[in-house]
Amino acid sequence: MVVTLKEVAERAGVSRSAVSRTFTDGASVSARTRAKVEKAANELGYAPNALASSLTTGRTKLIGLIVNNFHNPLILEVFDLFTRGLQDRGLRPLLVNLTDATDPAASLRMLRQYSVDGVIVASSTLPSSFAESFKNAGLPVVHAFGRYSIAPDVHVVGIDNVACGRMAAEALIRRGYTRVGFLGGPENATSTQDRAAGFLESFDGRTDITVSLSYAGDYTFDAGRAEMQRLLAMNPAEAYFCGDDLLAIGALSAIQDAGLSVPGDIGLIGLNDMEMSRWQNIGLTTIRQPVAQIIEAAIELVVATIEKPDRHPEIRLFPCRVIDRRTLP
Amino acid sequence: MVVTLKEVAERAGVSRSAVSRTFTDGASVSARTRAKVEKAANELGYAPNALASSLTTGRTKLIGLIVNNFHNPLILEVFDLFTRGLQDRGLRPLLVNLTDATDPAASLRMLRQYSVDGVIVASSTLPSSFAESFKNAGLPVVHAFGRYSIAPDVHVVGIDNVACGRMAAEALIRRGYTRVGFLGGPENATSTQDRAAGFLESFDGRTDITVSLSYAGDYTFDAGRAEMQRLLAMNPAEAYFCGDDLLAIGALSAIQDAGLSVPGDIGLIGLNDMEMSRWQNIGLTTIRQPVAQIIEAAIELVVATIEKPDRHPEIRLFPCRVIDRRTLP
Repeated sequence: MVVTLKEVAERAGVSRSAVSRTFTDGASVSARTRAKVEKAANELGYAPNALASSLTTGRTKLIGLIVNNFHNPLILEVFDLFTRGLQDRGLRPLLVNLTDATDPAASLRMLRQYSVDGVIVASSTLPSSFAESFKNAGLPVVHAFGRYSIAPDVHVVGIDNVACGRMAAEALIRRGYTRVGFLGGPENATSTQDRAAGFLESFDGRTDITVSLSYAGDYTFDAGRAEMQRLLAMNPAEAYFCGDDLLAIGALSAIQDAGLSVPGDIGLIGLNDMEMSRWQNIGLTTIRQPVAQIIEAAIELVVATIEKPDRHPEIRLFPCRVIDRRTLP
Repeated sequence: MVVTLKEVAERAGVSRSAVSRTFTDGASVSARTRAKVEKAANELGYAPNALASSLTTGRTKLIGLIVNNFHNPLILEVFDLFTRGLQDRGLRPLLVNLTDATDPAASLRMLRQYSVDGVIVASSTLPSSFAESFKNAGLPVVHAFGRYSIAPDVHVVGIDNVACGRMAAEALIRRGYTRVGFLGGPENATSTQDRAAGFLESFDGRTDITVSLSYAGDYTFDAGRAEMQRLLAMNPAEAYFCGDDLLAIGALSAIQDAGLSVPGDIGLIGLNDMEMSRWQNIGLTTIRQPVAQIIEAAIELVVATIEKPDRHPEIRLFPCRVIDRRTLP
């Protein structure tokens, strides 16, 4: 069943070494020989074995993709873009699901076993130290959707979550609200902390505006709904910045079930612009996170770091923007 | 940085062969030696190289997971369950995105390159011939969510789509509707065809009930919404069975935007029970597809077929059930 290199060489009428060189990146082979080999390989259905060739090149072309949240629809876009972006470059994603275990040592062991060439951590909730542990182990790594510091230890691509918090605050200030709230995700997630910080600092010195902070346990619909129900039972603000679209849609449902209207009684703005936010029966005003640009940059950086392992850590941030729909006036 | 087998052997005070045997499935090694080796390996942070060991075992422990729809939230559950199920067995998913290419030869070449041990095709729209081409190439394969025949060539796990069509029809008949419709996905998808067939046959000989069939171009919210808008402009039925929850939610939004009520003016029942259907501001009555059981069975079957390549093709079907929410009276 399996076609061997020898058979390709025989059919093409070239040496085995010529076939091998045709399928080795950067190896020297004449255009004429390459054409003969490729023709024979196509006719026979020959595929060079990436794992066997990794023994000579030291590269497996496998990229580890670490994800710890399979419940946010945004991650579907991430998977789609990542897998296509890698495939376009002849690379393959090896998926690691961290839902049940956040021990970096365990995921490192898994990825080491498969000799991945590099790792992309796609998470807005894992701490910076998580991605750093891969770098310390000598693996090229990029933290997508991660928190950046002035002098990062690893590449970080994503958005400026503090600036997003400010952007949301400005959207609410512009509409004249005087009692506003932040309804964030898990308090220990860096994305929640940064969004809250940017939101809060925008009201510094604004004694005319009252600001409250509250947190849902997860970035989920149910957590957003439960937290809004709790807020409604007290004295809710006039408008909320929800630290994620899922939270905002859960909050929206709680407000409507309480017989109140959005944005008539309470205004809402989310963050992400996931697919459901565009649904006409949701119509969420939100801040769009440019997922495609983030993924493209993450792939670019991991590839560049595989080529040049001592490349300096970079921060690449992409601009967000408000998408006006129906949940703010 | 990388810990070698030799270092583990020295620290454990055993031979290199003893270390190698400890990390080879089925190889003989005494409990005492194994304990010494595992202790030393843990202390040094040693991970056996799965790819190097594949040269001796002939197994890479990589399972190809082929997906052609990254826009249905149901696939998130699929990814989560697949990756966890594989990890629990020491296996790793290699993701193949077929969104842009449906050429089985191309995906076969990709998976061959990585010497995957087996393949799971997770798609309700790819034809049976797609999974069969992997089997013909000698690769263990399971088609999850696929169509089955009486004498299948490959393992198929999923639901009986014809029976689901009947189940939906019975739910509408029980409520006394006399004009009903099927709003399906792409006409060439086997899942659409089978759901339509089961739905239609339930009305055989029922001259008191009018049945209409219509098809959306994709299994998406937008396609469901557009198709329902077209139906509303004509003479819509009293209730629709939508061949997927996304279609049903799109239809729901079109009906509401037309100033009509669900289920007051038009009833809806979907299929899948994806997460958003449970959202209180959607509340879709639907037929639940038991995704977790399907995934578990698919993994079990691919593993069993890797162990025993001449295993007979099996069909494993799991029961669906109606989940009553708010879109049917």
